[in-house]
Amino acid sequence: MTVRPRLQARVFEVLDPDDRPAPIERALNLALSALIVLNVAGVVLGSVPAVERRFGAGLHLLELFSLGVFSVEYAGRVWTAPMKSGALPGWRGRLRWIFSVMGLIDLGVLLALALPGLGGLTAFRSLRLLKLVSILKFGRYSGSLSLIGRVLRSRREELLTTVLIVFVLVLIAATALFNLERGNKGFESIPAAMWWAIVTLTTVGYGDTYPLTGAGRAVAGFVMLLGIGIVALPAGLIASGFNEELQRRKTPGTGAPDQGHAPTP
Amino acid sequence: MTVRPRLQARVFEVLDPDDRPAPIERALNLALSALIVLNVAGVVLGSVPAVERRFGAGLHLLELFSLGVFSVEYAGRVWTAPMKSGALPGWRGRLRWIFSVMGLIDLGVLLALALPGLGGLTAFRSLRLLKLVSILKFGRYSGSLSLIGRVLRSRREELLTTVLIVFVLVLIAATALFNLERGNKGFESIPAAMWWAIVTLTTVGYGDTYPLTGAGRAVAGFVMLLGIGIVALPAGLIASGFNEELQRRKTPGTGAPDQGHAPTP
Amino acid sequence: MTVRPRLQARVFEVLDPDDRPAPIERALNLALSALIVLNVAGVVLGSVPAVERRFGAGLHLLELFSLGVFSVEYAGRVWTAPMKSGALPGWRGRLRWIFSVMGLIDLGVLLALALPGLGGLTAFRSLRLLKLVSILKFGRYSGSLSLIGRVLRSRREELLTTVLIVFVLVLIAATALFNLERGNKGFESIPAAMWWAIVTLTTVGYGDTYPLTGAGRAVAGFVMLLGIGIVALPAGLIASGFNEELQRRKTPGTGAPDQGHAPTP
Amino acid sequence: MTVRPRLQARVFEVLDPDDRPAPIERALNLALSALIVLNVAGVVLGSVPAVERRFGAGLHLLELFSLGVFSVEYAGRVWTAPMKSGALPGWRGRLRWIFSVMGLIDLGVLLALALPGLGGLTAFRSLRLLKLVSILKFGRYSGSLSLIGRVLRSRREELLTTVLIVFVLVLIAATALFNLERGNKGFESIPAAMWWAIVTLTTVGYGDTYPLTGAGRAVAGFVMLLGIGIVALPAGLIASGFNEELQRRKTPGTGAPDQGHAPTP
Repeated sequence: MTVRPRLQARVFEVLDPDDRPAPIERALNLALSALIVLNVAGVVLGSVPAVERRFGAGLHLLELFSLGVFSVEYAGRVWTAPMKSGALPGWRGRLRWIFSVMGLIDLGVLLALALPGLGGLTAFRSLRLLKLVSILKFGRYSGSLSLIGRVLRSRREELLTTVLIVFVLVLIAATALFNLERGNKGFESIPAAMWWAIVTLTTVGYGDTYPLTGAGRAVAGFVMLLGIGIVALPAGLIASGFNEELQRRKTPGTGAPDQGHAPTP
Repeated sequence: MTVRPRLQARVFEVLDPDDRPAPIERALNLALSALIVLNVAGVVLGSVPAVERRFGAGLHLLELFSLGVFSVEYAGRVWTAPMKSGALPGWRGRLRWIFSVMGLIDLGVLLALALPGLGGLTAFRSLRLLKLVSILKFGRYSGSLSLIGRVLRSRREELLTTVLIVFVLVLIAATALFNLERGNKGFESIPAAMWWAIVTLTTVGYGDTYPLTGAGRAVAGFVMLLGIGIVALPAGLIASGFNEELQRRKTPGTGAPDQGHAPTP
Repeated sequence: MTVRPRLQARVFEVLDPDDRPAPIERALNLALSALIVLNVAGVVLGSVPAVERRFGAGLHLLELFSLGVFSVEYAGRVWTAPMKSGALPGWRGRLRWIFSVMGLIDLGVLLALALPGLGGLTAFRSLRLLKLVSILKFGRYSGSLSLIGRVLRSRREELLTTVLIVFVLVLIAATALFNLERGNKGFESIPAAMWWAIVTLTTVGYGDTYPLTGAGRAVAGFVMLLGIGIVALPAGLIASGFNEELQRRKTPGTGAPDQGHAPTP
Repeated sequence: MTVRPRLQARVFEVLDPDDRPAPIERALNLALSALIVLNVAGVVLGSVPAVERRFGAGLHLLELFSLGVFSVEYAGRVWTAPMKSGALPGWRGRLRWIFSVMGLIDLGVLLALALPGLGGLTAFRSLRLLKLVSILKFGRYSGSLSLIGRVLRSRREELLTTVLIVFVLVLIAATALFNLERGNKGFESIPAAMWWAIVTLTTVGYGDTYPLTGAGRAVAGFVMLLGIGIVALPAGLIASGFNEELQRRKTPGTGAPDQGHAPTP
């Protein structure tokens, strides 16, 4: 660890700058971010037929240029992967990064750019959007993003449980309404009724399907009330998560680091 | 209590494993969970006419097989019911379990499987879905599920009061809009207008009915603002419930570790 | 105050029972509640033309009977009004109750029952619904209802400010969309666009009107994001209100017990 | 600073009264507020063609009168700008106010009133609405408004991060649904699908566009669940912000005047 090759360390710092980046590091990262934003704009606007007809050639050039830049970036990241804090040395560290989420996203983006003719798989081409995530990680908002991430992770189990509860409720509500609204539009089968149930439980309420019978509406009203609870559960979970996180930050040395001051004897 | 029959204790442990189940217990419970999931899939997909035509026979076989397995499970649970912590001994403990919520669900599922020809009561057959609840109780998420359950129970009174308030608001809003929108679609009677009111107060907003007159819209706007409060109330209640629960967990040595612990003198 | 007439005190206790009511008090209050529920059912179901045709005569009899009972109740409440804790003695206490919210509701209900032929004012007749509020005040949920009431009152100023903010946002959003969507359905004038704005900001989203132009949709997307904040504000306010209320309950002897009541020396 | 011109100080106090305004200050500010409300009513109602036809002349007179009053107010504010606490002396303080948000709003309102014939730019005329903001700053609700403002500012970074996350989710959801629902109404291009995505993620759910394919609906259901989290995030953020703010208020003498009681040494 002590005898790091100079160039490798330099490349690592450029690609993974610390909190106070040097001007050159900041400039390179800004340029990379700008290229990502440009690619996103290309994906979004290129999906409009009129734009594709007029600027298709330009967008293609952008893709070629991005392929070059992102390839260099990818090579650099693989090379310097062992220098991340906590990473394994040598190729084991590199392989771990290659198969990490960020590594697979970067590889996917490269493949999507390299094989554009892939059977009209425009879906594949829009994979470039995922590079946006790497922008979020830099810059002004990285602090609050990691705060939000920590809070969500601290409530991971409970949030997943909420999703499970929603899933069971969707199944039960859909089956009930399928039996009550038999034959009405949108309730022809349980999978069809599940679409209604999820749209209702999340209080989105498109209005493409809704119960028409009295009994169906009574049960649906009950489902909507449950929907309010379903919105309230994660809100309460996240609120208590933020409370905890903020108190932890403030009382690093205290014995019992919780909100309510212990009863003074 | 000291001279427990060996087999009964064994069956009980298999059906109601503690936190660190033996491999055989885990395997049996996984198999049971898989059978429940298969049944749920059968109910859901069997409701699609095309699937029913092609795989109806297979689904019927699955039902017969499940009837056998669930009967054995039910018999085992009745037999070992007195061994649950806090249960009454002998048949009194068994009867109490049979008439508990979980016991009635299991019995209903058995009857639904045993009497499939029951006058086309497919509604009855879909009762098997309720077995999903018993899956949720095992496995990874049982901890956070019981945390959520405890928080909801600690706010039970307030949440039910919120439901009552919603009900009164629905009645008043429906009556007001019925009088203002007289004759317009969806407001032909107060029960009809109640459908509009619950859809609006829960912010689902299908858009199948909405006020058309100026006065109706003014009152409806007010109802929507109340709807925001209706969403906010349970969110606030649950948030404070989680805060309390987390503080209790952190201060395990306090005197009375319940919702409002008594003031220590 | 020392020489209270026996009968007046008895009537007061019956109409306004304390936490541990005598059997006779409980029975009378239950009967009164049942009559209110019956009246509500009469208003709701009587609005359905088919029910009105078949049971109109019976509903009329119910109205006459209720007029009698509610008159006696009203007289009793006026008579015993000075016995409420903190009320002024004699007719000053009575007048204050007559012009209180509950007093005016009761008077309105009486008038609505006494003058049913009033120019087809069925709106007036449905005033009986408001008696539901007096049911909520008794019984199991009175405790949590008053807790919720206290929390909402402690955040009254902030909640009203939120309503004001919503109103200003509605005005601004409606004016912006009116100018961007000029002539499109639902945006013919600013008052028309205000209907769209309130439906959107409260995330109800009926879908009867929505922007069609690109610029209109861009601004509308921004309005929807604000709408999420508008839902989040009261949720946060009420959550902090419940936290405060629960901590107050737990630490009755602490020095500065918080916002509410001054520290009793 | 010691030798303030009498008149300037008087004008300043009238335009920017402290908490206990003199009767004359209160009356003038009330009159100004009334004129703003009248202008808002003029903008809103004047957008209705029937009203414009009948009362157009009167509304024009109101505009002329308002132009006069607001000009005097603007001149007074520019003149007394250096007297604001913390303002720079002389014209530097004046320029800073002129280019502040409130200053630019006031200037815009004046220009909008002075140039009404400006190419039919009614959009420009409705700028007067923004004066509403200055009403909110006075009166009963200024306290809770500044409390809400402080809480929102204290969570500014996290709220903006939430908006960024929503934006990235909208992009990804829109691209996914564009690829799954290709050609269906509302999903003709990614920008079109973005409209669907924002309407769904904010749980508004107009129902003008929704997925029709099975795969599209499965992904959309996932997006709706994310939408619940998107509503829950700011609610939790704001709840913890209010908690912090209220605890700060209660412990005014503590060293570190924030939520967590200072770490006891």
